[in-house]
Amino acid sequence: MTGSLPHRVSVVDVGPRDGLQHEATLLDVAAKVTFIELIASAGVPVVEAGAFVSPRWVPQMADTDEVFARVSRREGTRYPALVPNIQGLERASAAGVNEVAIFAAASESFSRKNINQSIAESLETYAAVCARAHESGFRVRGYVSTGFGCPFEGAVPPARVAEIAGALADMGVFEVSISDTIGVAHPGQVWNVLEALGRRLPVGRTALHFHDTRGTGLANVLAGLQAGVSVFDTSCGGLGGCPYAPGSTGNLATEDLVYMLSGLGVETSIDLNALVAASDFMAGLLDHPLPSRYYQASRRGQRPDPGRELPHA
Amino acid sequence: MTGSLPHRVSVVDVGPRDGLQHEATLLDVAAKVTFIELIASAGVPVVEAGAFVSPRWVPQMADTDEVFARVSRREGTRYPALVPNIQGLERASAAGVNEVAIFAAASESFSRKNINQSIAESLETYAAVCARAHESGFRVRGYVSTGFGCPFEGAVPPARVAEIAGALADMGVFEVSISDTIGVAHPGQVWNVLEALGRRLPVGRTALHFHDTRGTGLANVLAGLQAGVSVFDTSCGGLGGCPYAPGSTGNLATEDLVYMLSGLGVETSIDLNALVAASDFMAGLLDHPLPSRYYQASRRGQRPDPGRELPHA
Repeated sequence: MTGSLPHRVSVVDVGPRDGLQHEATLLDVAAKVTFIELIASAGVPVVEAGAFVSPRWVPQMADTDEVFARVSRREGTRYPALVPNIQGLERASAAGVNEVAIFAAASESFSRKNINQSIAESLETYAAVCARAHESGFRVRGYVSTGFGCPFEGAVPPARVAEIAGALADMGVFEVSISDTIGVAHPGQVWNVLEALGRRLPVGRTALHFHDTRGTGLANVLAGLQAGVSVFDTSCGGLGGCPYAPGSTGNLATEDLVYMLSGLGVETSIDLNALVAASDFMAGLLDHPLPSRYYQASRRGQRPDPGRELPHA
Repeated sequence: MTGSLPHRVSVVDVGPRDGLQHEATLLDVAAKVTFIELIASAGVPVVEAGAFVSPRWVPQMADTDEVFARVSRREGTRYPALVPNIQGLERASAAGVNEVAIFAAASESFSRKNINQSIAESLETYAAVCARAHESGFRVRGYVSTGFGCPFEGAVPPARVAEIAGALADMGVFEVSISDTIGVAHPGQVWNVLEALGRRLPVGRTALHFHDTRGTGLANVLAGLQAGVSVFDTSCGGLGGCPYAPGSTGNLATEDLVYMLSGLGVETSIDLNALVAASDFMAGLLDHPLPSRYYQASRRGQRPDPGRELPHA
């Protein structure tokens, strides 16, 4: 009854970047390096390890250069970093990074508020970044943010998402990750967006990036799997914000994704217990509980209260 | 791409029973009555309002008689109560209840631990309860707990779930709700269980009852919808335990379900804002935050932090 799901899924753990960039706690380089190494050693094939952005705007990422200098790379694991412009690319290059990610928005208001450029201006910037990155032999990944809704404009037309994704694809990015920046997506939308995207980009070059703000994260993944998507961005522990802090919501948790995929018989090569250990390490450094439901359940112990469903009469 | 989902879903809110029975806070009758009335006035068609079980075992449900005496019934809304045996049925009858729910387990160990009877003994009890209830013109609903896993035995064979559901169907229950008592289900299992069930029970008489312990709740609902299920049990606010208390996990939240269904274009007649108001009322009385993700997001305000996806460089 499942239809044909992909046999294998590739997970991109964005916790050390999309997760940590929103934390009030500023971690030191050693903590970040350990976190990245723990995630990689759990078998996650891609760990987004930092961002070469202005330290004035994102102090949490100010030491990405140093993180890359210290982190032990595992054979076969990829460690991309976010770059917003040529200067970022140059810093990435100096840090020995060979895969970068660029980020365009599908909504004009969000683009202006978030990166202070119109979408058209940002695409010009990224075209230059891509050209230079490809010259240097880098791989470039693209994000399309607000792919399922914008905090200022509300609904974002799937055709617009496909247009921006197509523009990134034309620059030669190997993959475009469609991001539910504000966590509003539902499975019907996932199908609609993927249908529109399919006209511009093969599904094999499409990734999905969900935030579990309204509990729909794994339902959206299931919808994506059914449409043939086999790359998902998640964060270890569901990092990306405290569930009880205003305005803050986490990425879909890597643990929750891997638990469901494992049940569905979809391979990931990821060791769930090792992931939980990575989250444990980070939980000890932060000032709030980690949002991952699987992580929370595992910390309560393997045996839920057996009497919870029904009262003995 | 959705296949054909049901056009309409009927929601059974079990918050006032399955939710409140696990709360450390003992609420007074007036609070329970208000909660039930708020849920019903949000448009939820079925509100499981209490349980006629031993007050020694479940003090939270000790005043179910009084709750039923005081609650205002809305035209068209159903207010079932759980009954474990003939004595419970008699109390229900005296309280003016006309729909009851019985609960068998699919795992032998769970049945013995939870209701101190073997499955066979419990089915004998329920056959007597059903016969008497039907004589009195009651509708009887059946639960099969541990339908996706048992805390003592682990995996539960789908054929066993179908056998117990079939036994309840043979007693004349109008619907069987398959419960993921410990919150371990994933979509593949949902399809497997429904496939086995289909040999004993039409899908129109099947309901699904998930706990969102590992974040798979809505993915499991999507799987159920795709298999034709159109009745889901949830609890207002995701009540059913505090996410940070040992051994405690909530039912899938009614808000989260309604949010996803609304996005999918599946009708429920439920007003999401009114549901949030019901959760608000209960949140003010309990000693922990409500687990519903939609509820949490709505309390943070309608506008998520627009800068969260990407740093300005």
